[in-house]
Amino acid sequence: MENVGTALAEMTLPQISPLAGEPIDRADAERLAGVLKALADPARLRLLSLIQSAPDGEACVCDLTAPLGLSQPTVSHHLRILTEAGLLEREKRGVWAFYRLVPSAIGTIADLLTPPRKRATKKAPR
Amino acid sequence: MENVGTALAEMTLPQISPLAGEPIDRADAERLAGVLKALADPARLRLLSLIQSAPDGEACVCDLTAPLGLSQPTVSHHLRILTEAGLLEREKRGVWAFYRLVPSAIGTIADLLTPPRKRATKKAPR
Repeated sequence: MENVGTALAEMTLPQISPLAGEPIDRADAERLAGVLKALADPARLRLLSLIQSAPDGEACVCDLTAPLGLSQPTVSHHLRILTEAGLLEREKRGVWAFYRLVPSAIGTIADLLTPPRKRATKKAPR
Repeated sequence: MENVGTALAEMTLPQISPLAGEPIDRADAERLAGVLKALADPARLRLLSLIQSAPDGEACVCDLTAPLGLSQPTVSHHLRILTEAGLLEREKRGVWAFYRLVPSAIGTIADLLTPPRKRATKKAPR
């Protein structure tokens, strides 16, 4: 799977914002849809939420199976999808891999979905 | 299909934000995932983008088939999914139905995905 997070970072905002006043093209729509698909799953939203609210903002698979009530392979599968989408970063320490959110990636998606008037007001208030 | 947009509007932000510092529960994660699924499709992102950038911010199926290169039934199908998710509103005028974005619904999703630090800074700058 392409690292969609990296692809997102390489595009400038006006190019891919579906709500910035210019229609987006097919390729950009496919990239953005890929990241949104990674997000659009209840278990993955709960994983992001659990990791974000963990004491140091990071968690390993071992912390996440019990609160979700899912097996370790299933949790690992969801974590891999989120990491490949550029929404989580992974660091191996000892026997466990620790995951934390990539705030810039999620912030970028939030910006892309912010209606243009709201964004324009922030940049140039009247 | 449940009108997920209405469901979103009925929840207060801290309850369902996956990134607000408290884990979200299963039901809220399922509602938010439902709205994100409606968004996570290249054709639907392009439809939103085309409608938003149309002269009066509205368009009918007749305006949308040619730019997308899709049949009218396919475009209607995607418009129905976006409307049921609360992302578009539909007004019948004469023989055509006209669609426009529901900025508050899309703004809510953007807010939900805004990392908490960014949001806190806006509310209480130091």
